[in-house]
Amino acid sequence: MTVASAEGSSRGPGADELTGFGDWLAERVAARESQLVLGLDPDPARLWPSAIRRAEANGTVAAPPATRAARAVAAHCALAIEATGEHCVAVKLQVACFERLGAPGWSVLAETAGRAREHGLLVIADAKRGDIHVTAAAYAQAFLGETPTPFGPVPGLGVDAMTVNPLLGRDSLEPFTTAARAHGRGLFVLVRTSNPGADDVQERGLVDGGSVSDRLAALVGEIGAAGTGQSGLSDIGAVVGATAPDRLHALREQMPHAPFLLPGVGAQGGRIEELAPAFVPGPAGALIAASRGIVAAHEQTGGDPAAAAAREAGRLRALAWRVAA
Amino acid sequence: MTVASAEGSSRGPGADELTGFGDWLAERVAARESQLVLGLDPDPARLWPSAIRRAEANGTVAAPPATRAARAVAAHCALAIEATGEHCVAVKLQVACFERLGAPGWSVLAETAGRAREHGLLVIADAKRGDIHVTAAAYAQAFLGETPTPFGPVPGLGVDAMTVNPLLGRDSLEPFTTAARAHGRGLFVLVRTSNPGADDVQERGLVDGGSVSDRLAALVGEIGAAGTGQSGLSDIGAVVGATAPDRLHALREQMPHAPFLLPGVGAQGGRIEELAPAFVPGPAGALIAASRGIVAAHEQTGGDPAAAAAREAGRLRALAWRVAA
Repeated sequence: MTVASAEGSSRGPGADELTGFGDWLAERVAARESQLVLGLDPDPARLWPSAIRRAEANGTVAAPPATRAARAVAAHCALAIEATGEHCVAVKLQVACFERLGAPGWSVLAETAGRAREHGLLVIADAKRGDIHVTAAAYAQAFLGETPTPFGPVPGLGVDAMTVNPLLGRDSLEPFTTAARAHGRGLFVLVRTSNPGADDVQERGLVDGGSVSDRLAALVGEIGAAGTGQSGLSDIGAVVGATAPDRLHALREQMPHAPFLLPGVGAQGGRIEELAPAFVPGPAGALIAASRGIVAAHEQTGGDPAAAAAREAGRLRALAWRVAA
Repeated sequence: MTVASAEGSSRGPGADELTGFGDWLAERVAARESQLVLGLDPDPARLWPSAIRRAEANGTVAAPPATRAARAVAAHCALAIEATGEHCVAVKLQVACFERLGAPGWSVLAETAGRAREHGLLVIADAKRGDIHVTAAAYAQAFLGETPTPFGPVPGLGVDAMTVNPLLGRDSLEPFTTAARAHGRGLFVLVRTSNPGADDVQERGLVDGGSVSDRLAALVGEIGAAGTGQSGLSDIGAVVGATAPDRLHALREQMPHAPFLLPGVGAQGGRIEELAPAFVPGPAGALIAASRGIVAAHEQTGGDPAAAAAREAGRLRALAWRVAA
């Protein structure tokens, strides 16, 4: 790890690609003294008013709604990153919220990833993609790699990590794993999500013992073993909902080296104080993702959205750092 | 169902929105005398040469690779639809293959959907999306509905149906179901995929009996019951791999009204002759999706790609129609 890459933003060309994502994540968490992930899931109907003003000041009212909404989303995300970035180690971009604005939304997804990198933040694409082998490889090109074409390679988003859905099994994860390792990136595999419906499928008991989530955890543990770095963290992480703290201990045992991405704090009811078992591998053993809890903090506290978001991010960061210690 | 909508392309504004997707699908299959779905998963490195010529003749070599590749993908898809559309009832657009070209790819996804509609084909987005409630709603806006913004609504792709991943459980499917029913569209829920890795998770036995796939089938049956039309087909269908014909009978019993989308014919080893149990609800009880088997038929037979694709589509269509009878 070079000093330049440790001090700067996400790895660019020329950075040490031999260091896997687990070590890179450990380094970034230590450098930022934060496990907090700013979740960006922009709803065009609930943007910060300052974002709409900024976007419209630079734009033209003659543009189609998708373009104007995308510009406003870009401004909103930029303002949220400016306000809270210093408290965070990463952003988590909710791909659905960009995708619904079509091509302009996809452009803004890439732009927002770049903005986050400028602030020294890792970029996690919350894409939850999963498909059969050849299609999984295409998704991996879209997010982690590049696509060869007769006209030259088309670069993907180049995010540091992405979330993937393992319902299709081990062979559907392989192209993601291969692409992640080729580019020094990471994966967060859905193991136990934060929503009430997680019980419907993920927590069904298996005749072989454990639940579907336990089976997924075993799969993550197996695939991740080969990608464990000197930090003790693997490049293959797991999404584990902060709303199920009683499951953390068992899942951690099955995935001793996986970084956990923990959504569900705040609006969904998860409490950081209950997440200590996730941090067993060290301070970077888990990332705490908060979206509306930060960006919509002003709806609870009143006042300026940016100031409220910064306060809440600072509070969550300090709380997580203490719980992880 | 109006004569205009029955004779024309997919339902546009003004068509009878009260008819659910199941009835609409039954009508289209009967009108086209086809259950064949043209799968479009364009690989920029394996496009028909005529597509590259067509795209470059209209384009500029100064454009960036993503734009040139997207134009070539658009031409490839248009040529494949022109060559085989008359034999098909629908196209299945593999979203990954467009997404990997970024914003230009997303534009071409919308353009290709429009091209398919011009040929009277239903459009199925093979997106395999799945997320928690609020995010699932965003994906539903992207594919089935529209997104409210301060600048006016942003229309989504407006496909007739999309594939969704049910790992996150019933509450994650609700926003898709709600959006589909509001717009007269349909869903195909992953139940048993066509890849070898399906055994890793989907075919694990549950202590309550059956496998994970059986549990997913029960979920589809429950959600789909309220959307079953006069044709006996529901608006909530299921993806069932053509590579597991031994599972068809049991899954059909649990989902008596679900249209099945059957991928995996051809390159993956599925044989249409073995798929009769899927057609129990009638000729539209199942759709046969073939991608490389049609578009890359010339790699087996030699000769002109378009002619080879048309021949293979005609053969598969006739075979499916016979098996379904």
